[in-house]
Amino acid sequence: MKVQSVAVLWQIWSRKSFVTSSTLRAFSTSLINPSNSILMSPSLVSLDCPDTWTSGSVQSDRSSVQKYTSKHVAQILDGKVMAEEIRSGIALEVKRMKESIGQVPGLAVILVGQQRDSLTYVRNKKIGSEEVGIKFLMTMLPDNCTENEVCKALQSYSENPSVHGIILQLPLPRHLDEGKILGLLTLDKDVDGFHPVNIGNLAMLGREPLFIPCTPKGCIELLLRSGIDIKGKKAVVIGRSNIVGLPMSLLLQRHHATVTIIHAYTKNPDKVAHEADILITAAGVPNLVCRNWLKPGAIVVDVGTTPVEDPECEHGYRLIGDVCFEEASKVASAVTPVPGGVGPMTVAMLLHNTLESAKRAFKFS
Amino acid sequence: MKVQSVAVLWQIWSRKSFVTSSTLRAFSTSLINPSNSILMSPSLVSLDCPDTWTSGSVQSDRSSVQKYTSKHVAQILDGKVMAEEIRSGIALEVKRMKESIGQVPGLAVILVGQQRDSLTYVRNKKIGSEEVGIKFLMTMLPDNCTENEVCKALQSYSENPSVHGIILQLPLPRHLDEGKILGLLTLDKDVDGFHPVNIGNLAMLGREPLFIPCTPKGCIELLLRSGIDIKGKKAVVIGRSNIVGLPMSLLLQRHHATVTIIHAYTKNPDKVAHEADILITAAGVPNLVCRNWLKPGAIVVDVGTTPVEDPECEHGYRLIGDVCFEEASKVASAVTPVPGGVGPMTVAMLLHNTLESAKRAFKFS
Repeated sequence: MKVQSVAVLWQIWSRKSFVTSSTLRAFSTSLINPSNSILMSPSLVSLDCPDTWTSGSVQSDRSSVQKYTSKHVAQILDGKVMAEEIRSGIALEVKRMKESIGQVPGLAVILVGQQRDSLTYVRNKKIGSEEVGIKFLMTMLPDNCTENEVCKALQSYSENPSVHGIILQLPLPRHLDEGKILGLLTLDKDVDGFHPVNIGNLAMLGREPLFIPCTPKGCIELLLRSGIDIKGKKAVVIGRSNIVGLPMSLLLQRHHATVTIIHAYTKNPDKVAHEADILITAAGVPNLVCRNWLKPGAIVVDVGTTPVEDPECEHGYRLIGDVCFEEASKVASAVTPVPGGVGPMTVAMLLHNTLESAKRAFKFS
Repeated sequence: MKVQSVAVLWQIWSRKSFVTSSTLRAFSTSLINPSNSILMSPSLVSLDCPDTWTSGSVQSDRSSVQKYTSKHVAQILDGKVMAEEIRSGIALEVKRMKESIGQVPGLAVILVGQQRDSLTYVRNKKIGSEEVGIKFLMTMLPDNCTENEVCKALQSYSENPSVHGIILQLPLPRHLDEGKILGLLTLDKDVDGFHPVNIGNLAMLGREPLFIPCTPKGCIELLLRSGIDIKGKKAVVIGRSNIVGLPMSLLLQRHHATVTIIHAYTKNPDKVAHEADILITAAGVPNLVCRNWLKPGAIVVDVGTTPVEDPECEHGYRLIGDVCFEEASKVASAVTPVPGGVGPMTVAMLLHNTLESAKRAFKFS
C-alpha cells in the first residue's frame, strides 16, 4: 500500500501563496478561541464515558435509508482548504513560541536510499515544515548503509534538544530490521505515532497516546470540521495496516463509532462496506470501492493514493484513490477527493504533532 | 463489568482430583508433539501474511444460512475439560523445569483491601498455581494504604528473580491511581498482558506481545481446540473493555477474522450481532443476548459472568452469563456454558503465561 504517497498531493497545493482568505478565517477563529486550540479533535480521555449497559437501554436506530435522485451530487470534503487553515494556525503558534521563548519546533527525517517516492515525500515534509517556521533537519544515508549507521543517526536526533519529532522514512532497504530500528525511536519524539506504546495507548480506554498517527488523526479532524458526528455511527475501515487502517479503527472506536475492519480475507467486503455510515478506505487498490459498496448517504473518506504513470502530469504520474469518485459522488452524502482530501490533512497533522511535541519539551502553553 | 469473576468458576472444578483421563490424554499428546507445545494457539507473527488486494480477487461467501429443526441442540464448548488438559500440560512442564534446572515459575499477587470478589479470585489463582507447581506469593495491603506502599510491593516483586508474573488485583480503591501504578509493572512480568506495550504489540501486524491477556487468549484457544476456523469468519465482540473486549477484537483480527465491536453506543446491536459467525460477548449484562441476536449456526462464546445472590449456592451466589443459554442452544451451532466455559480457560492461560515467562527468564526450552 502506498499510503505515504498521500504527501505527494500536498506538493501541488503547497506552492500556492500561503496567506489566503482561509488563513485569515483561521486567525479570527484563534482570536475567538482563547485556548489557542488549532484542531477540533478533543483529547481522547475527554471522550471516555462509561459503557453502561442494560438490556432495556439498547440503542435502536430506525432511520430509513436516504433516497437520492439521479441529480444528487455528494458534498466534497475539501482537505486542502482545511489543512491550509490548520497550517496557518500552526504558523501563528510557532511565531508566538519564537517570540515568547526564542525557540521553534524541530523535525528531523532519516532517509535511507534514493527511492523516488521517498524523496518526494521528504521534500514535501521539508517545504511544509519550513513554511510554518518549523526547523527541518535531514540525514541521508546510502542504500547499502549498516543498521549501526541508522541507529547512530536516530540516537543523535534523540539526544538533540532542538529536535522534537523524528521520522524514519519508510520503507527501509530489506537488509535493515525495520521493527528493531523503529523500536529505538524515542517515544516522546515519535511524531508518526507508530511506537507500540503509542498504539497501545491509542487503543486503551482511559489512556492518551503522546502522538496519534497522522493520517487517522487527519481523517477524524476532517470529519469533525465537516460537522459529521461520529458517535454511534457504523464505521467501516478498509485495510488494517499498522500506519493507517489499524490506528484509524482504534481512533474511530475512541470516538464511539461501531467499527468493522475489512481486510483481504474478509468475505463479501462489498456487503460489509455497504453497512457503513462512515467508510474510510486505505487499501491502496485503485477504484476498489464502487457504487455497490456504498450505502446511500454514506460519508466516504478515501485514503488510498496509488501513483499511476501519466506523462502529461507534472511529475510523470498522477494519484488514484481507492474509490470510484464519479460513482461515489452520486450515492454518498460526502466524499473526499484524491488528491486534495486526506493527503494535505496528513501533512498538517505531522506539523501539528511536531508543534505539540515542542510545546511539551519547552513546557510552553 | 465483572469479568474477573470468571475465575470464580474455576473454584468449583479445581476441587476435583487432578489426575484424570484428560490428564493422561494430554500427556500422550505431549509425547506425540516433540515441541512440548501445551497450547494450540500459534505465535501471532506466524499468522501474519500479506494483505494482497486486487479488485478481482475479492472474497465472496455464498454459503446459505444453516437450517435448524426444532430439536436442534448446540454443541457445548466445555472449557472445563480443555482447561484441565492444559493445566496438566503445564504441570508436566513445571516438573520438567524443576528436574532439569531446579527452578519453578513464581506468580505474585498484590491485593489491596478485602473485597469479597477479589479475595475469591486471588484464592483461585493460589489454588491453581500450587496445583501445577507454580510458586505463589501474595502481598495483602489495607484498604487505606498509600500509593507508595503499592509501588514498593510492585518494585519488590519486580526485582525478585523467583517471581515471573505479577498481578495487581483490580479494582483498586478509588484513592489509588490505577493507570499510574499499572504503568510501573515490569513489562516482562506483566502476565495479565495489560501493559500498553503488550496491547500495542498485540494490535500491530508483524509484532508479538510478551503476553496475551488471559481471557481473550483462553477464548481463542477454546475455539482452536474445538476445531473452529477463525480466518475469514465474521466475528462480533460485545464489550470493549481494556481487559477483554479490546484485546479480544485485536486477537481475532490477528487470526484474520472480520471483526466488529459492539459497545453501549452501538445502534441496533441485535442486528449487528446477528451478522456474526463467531459471537464473543463480554458485556456483563445477564441475558443480554437472546435468540434474535444470534445467526443460526453461530459459534457463541460467553465471557460474561455476573454474580447473582443465591443462598442455595455454595458461596451464596451463582454466576449468570450474557447469553440466554437456553435460547442459544436452540439456534447456535456451539456455545460455551457459564460457568464452565471461558472461566477455567482464563485461569489456565494465566498459569501458561507465568510458565512462559519463567521459561524466558531461565532460558529454558
